[in-house]
Amino acid sequence: MIKVSIIGSGNVAQHLISAFKTTSNVEIIQVFSRNQNSTIDALTSCKIVSSFTDLLEADVYIVAVSDSAITTVSEQLPFKNRLVVHTSGAAPLNSLSDNNRSGVFYPLQTFTKGKPVDFKVIPFCLEAENENDFIILKKLANSISNSIHSIDSEQRKALHVAAVFVNNFTNHLYQIGEEICAEHKISFDILKPLILETAQKIQDLSPIDAQTGPAKRKDQNTIQSHESFLTNKKQNNLYKILTQSILDHGEEL
Amino acid sequence: MIKVSIIGSGNVAQHLISAFKTTSNVEIIQVFSRNQNSTIDALTSCKIVSSFTDLLEADVYIVAVSDSAITTVSEQLPFKNRLVVHTSGAAPLNSLSDNNRSGVFYPLQTFTKGKPVDFKVIPFCLEAENENDFIILKKLANSISNSIHSIDSEQRKALHVAAVFVNNFTNHLYQIGEEICAEHKISFDILKPLILETAQKIQDLSPIDAQTGPAKRKDQNTIQSHESFLTNKKQNNLYKILTQSILDHGEEL
Repeated sequence: MIKVSIIGSGNVAQHLISAFKTTSNVEIIQVFSRNQNSTIDALTSCKIVSSFTDLLEADVYIVAVSDSAITTVSEQLPFKNRLVVHTSGAAPLNSLSDNNRSGVFYPLQTFTKGKPVDFKVIPFCLEAENENDFIILKKLANSISNSIHSIDSEQRKALHVAAVFVNNFTNHLYQIGEEICAEHKISFDILKPLILETAQKIQDLSPIDAQTGPAKRKDQNTIQSHESFLTNKKQNNLYKILTQSILDHGEEL
Repeated sequence: MIKVSIIGSGNVAQHLISAFKTTSNVEIIQVFSRNQNSTIDALTSCKIVSSFTDLLEADVYIVAVSDSAITTVSEQLPFKNRLVVHTSGAAPLNSLSDNNRSGVFYPLQTFTKGKPVDFKVIPFCLEAENENDFIILKKLANSISNSIHSIDSEQRKALHVAAVFVNNFTNHLYQIGEEICAEHKISFDILKPLILETAQKIQDLSPIDAQTGPAKRKDQNTIQSHESFLTNKKQNNLYKILTQSILDHGEEL
């Protein structure tokens, strides 16, 4: 049984609490929340504390707070030489105070408030200063997920940047698609099966092999026709830049 | 029973043949293929013809050929005043010869050779010169799909451009993600659950509401840190442009 203390009450904290509740290998002994939090209350029967001095001894303290608060929060913990980990893709290992043994417990997924996720398939990117701590984090992650990865701070930063491309930027392209539909009184629903299939396709196929479309075919007629069609300057600009990027990548192969 | 003749033997033709085989409302009476085609042979027991003069009378002729061949093929059909439709998102209705009654039967999906698709959820965008023909196309589409839409040529063009954003450009961002992973010796598999969840999220949520990430949060620290990290000029350029686009869209709300 691994005794876990969760520091934080936001989105990631809530999803982790829900996930750990499904396993008998982990006991959440405390949740730290600065303010009363009814969502956390509803999620767990364990004690919610609002003062760091009330924190009991745990095997792992999971600091699930915003990136900018990681250092401050970890510096305020009133104990030494315990295992304290953060859950961020962007923050390096050494953003945690060196009063304690540092680690990273980063679930690479986009969490939506109130929307349950299947933790079994969520990749956990783990890092620790020493091997024993890594083994604890591995056991902890394994209790809720089948996808465990040893990722150092530099690799995690690369993953985080890559995630911005495949998640944030991709979602922005969905938004452009929705805009174009709205401008022509078409339901965005028509594009949803295509969006899903595009994501499903690369589960088995490399994106290079999955690439289709006018830029991939070097179909200048269609490209010209699309560019003339896009009178919205921002949409037109993005179309040109992304088309050129696909054309350039084709050249490199 | 609707009698259908398929003109063409490529990817879309093959998927349509497979789909029509599952319904008793449609009979594929002939497939036109210029050359011997073993895939089509295996798919259907109907006669494959290689000369337009061998085409029998059908209720609908589906011209499933490349955009640039639609006009030439439709002009070569040796009959008049029958219903001839194309399957393209990019070609207008009038790209078909006016020897016959024109229509469009456009399944909005990305088809991968050999990969079966669930036609029931594929949106069919239909257009016809007259109402009777539209009713025939609607019956035809309804026999394999639950998602039928009346879309004129202008709207279809908008949909096609929007599809380039959400499918072709999105897949290109997946490719950039894979590149970044490869450069740092990380398995691209780690990003796949995130990619799937990003696409699933907007099935119920508007992309505007689903947007997350440093640009959405106006988190200049993370943006600067990512930009310094991306030493590859093309990746860096795309990062800047897409980040700026999200920032600009945020301003408009």
